[in-house]
Amino acid sequence: MGVIHKLIGDKDGFDWAEVPVQSYDSLEGGKILGRELVGEQEGARYFAIRYFEVQPRERTTVDQHPYDHGVIILRGEAKALLDERTYEVKFGDVMYISPNQRHQFKNTGDIPFGFISVSPNKKLAK
Amino acid sequence: MGVIHKLIGDKDGFDWAEVPVQSYDSLEGGKILGRELVGEQEGARYFAIRYFEVQPRERTTVDQHPYDHGVIILRGEAKALLDERTYEVKFGDVMYISPNQRHQFKNTGDIPFGFISVSPNKKLAK
Repeated sequence: MGVIHKLIGDKDGFDWAEVPVQSYDSLEGGKILGRELVGEQEGARYFAIRYFEVQPRERTTVDQHPYDHGVIILRGEAKALLDERTYEVKFGDVMYISPNQRHQFKNTGDIPFGFISVSPNKKLAK
Repeated sequence: MGVIHKLIGDKDGFDWAEVPVQSYDSLEGGKILGRELVGEQEGARYFAIRYFEVQPRERTTVDQHPYDHGVIILRGEAKALLDERTYEVKFGDVMYISPNQRHQFKNTGDIPFGFISVSPNKKLAK
């Protein structure tokens, strides 16, 4: 059984039909909204696809974990920290974050910064 | 080691720095361009992220295989076939295509239809 989640949000905040929202704290105390668009709920056994949105001038916490990420930027612009280096990223840029690599995103634009995160099912990648 | 592939293409065709291009035939005899943006080359052991672009009025071949896909539409619009049903999809829509599910994309717009495809490393999903 295939699944289609239609983008129903607008420029103020992307949203998808029938996808629950999770909330995380930004370093500035704001809210980062996350959505699991594809995962075990959809039937995917090997990977998960999530979307996160960071508000202007806010940062994600510095993250580091044993599983890797693919990242696709969907909107806005940010500085991405990978280990000790920062990179400017915007729509369409694609990143690979290695296992245990420190990473963080800082929204440097005037609109929400949104990105897709791909990760292996955590049962695979300890 | 992280990797960043910058989007360097334009509205006539998305392209990424340092990513080789592969070419596939559309049903109409045109060319569908594919790029592996994240895979074993980048160090990813569990998943691959690819981008495909279909020209206006062209279709991908009907595909069916034992591994599943996540799909994120990046540009344009299409009719997506999943088994016997078709769905209209456009920027930001996200799909899950199950193992062995028949699928096909037909570009129904005036610009290239481009989508990200996520799949498990084929060594995992036989």
